Amino acid sequence: MKYGIAIFPSKKVQDEANSYRKRYDPHYALIPPHITLKEPFEVEEKKLEAEVIPELEKIAKDTSQFSVEVTKVSSFSPVTNTIYLKVNPTDPIIQLNEKLRNGTMPDNQEYAFVPHITIAQKLSDEEFSDVYGSLSMESFDIVDKVDRFQLLYQLENGAWSVYETFRFGDE
Amino acid sequence: MKYGIAIFPSKKVQDEANSYRKRYDPHYALIPPHITLKEPFEVEEKKLEAEVIPELEKIAKDTSQFSVEVTKVSSFSPVTNTIYLKVNPTDPIIQLNEKLRNGTMPDNQEYAFVPHITIAQKLSDEEFSDVYGSLSMESFDIVDKVDRFQLLYQLENGAWSVYETFRFGDE
Repeated sequence: MKYGIAIFPSKKVQDEANSYRKRYDPHYALIPPHITLKEPFEVEEKKLEAEVIPELEKIAKDTSQFSVEVTKVSSFSPVTNTIYLKVNPTDPIIQLNEKLRNGTMPDNQEYAFVPHITIAQKLSDEEFSDVYGSLSMESFDIVDKVDRFQLLYQLENGAWSVYETFRFGDE
Repeated sequence: MKYGIAIFPSKKVQDEANSYRKRYDPHYALIPPHITLKEPFEVEEKKLEAEVIPELEKIAKDTSQFSVEVTKVSSFSPVTNTIYLKVNPTDPIIQLNEKLRNGTMPDNQEYAFVPHITIAQKLSDEEFSDVYGSLSMESFDIVDKVDRFQLLYQLENGAWSVYETFRFGDE
């Protein structure tokens, strides 16, 4: 099965992200707004239960609650026309991403980790210019508490279903 | 905020349910296929953390893994044109629903608990007759393991986001 690991921000932030995603993100219906912590990876269910989940429990236990901050949008252009809320890459989220690649966890990450909440993707070049031109003039003032991450699996229709939540250990 | 409690069946069962929901269920994009354990209820975030979540942890800890079985479709007609995979109402799932209404949990249930996985809703009378006529001739042979439930909250767009998973205690 194909699994992924993500942070879901608070309802307020999800609602704000969805106000853009509704118009500009064809993945709008497949998963709520999120910060991907680990790109999708394949693992057998047996191995998941025996190795991956105990490791995720350990990682969550060793992680303390932290804040994420968003002040502006950014984009992966010219690689892709994806526009995102840029999550400031502070130590706690960078370290969490690293832990999720080390030890018994599969290391499937191809690019540098850029924490973000996608709000637009698969736009035509013209749409991208319009939307990015307008969104990049806006400033954001989002601060959100992170105290857990979620393990999800992907269904045949492309949608993601949450398998388990891992709360951080300092609560 | 508005919260709900549900069981998400295995990927295999979700994929099968989605093959119907894709065509017949306008809520297809709002939540993966699920068995509602507790109808949506309103609770403040503070109370959720202080009272509801500790109670859910306790309930999960006191619950043992069980199986659910689906052998046929059924419908809420003539009350609504909803068609669902009928989950046999065995003791464990009935008791779990009861626990989620007792004690400090809000008791907001209006109708008798009928465990089910919705696959079609908001059909016209004509569509309903066609779809139900054809689906009620099919037999199903689904047995699925249940070892957790999930607490979700509803976003402004109507979609549901998982807040926390509660694994049963006997694992």
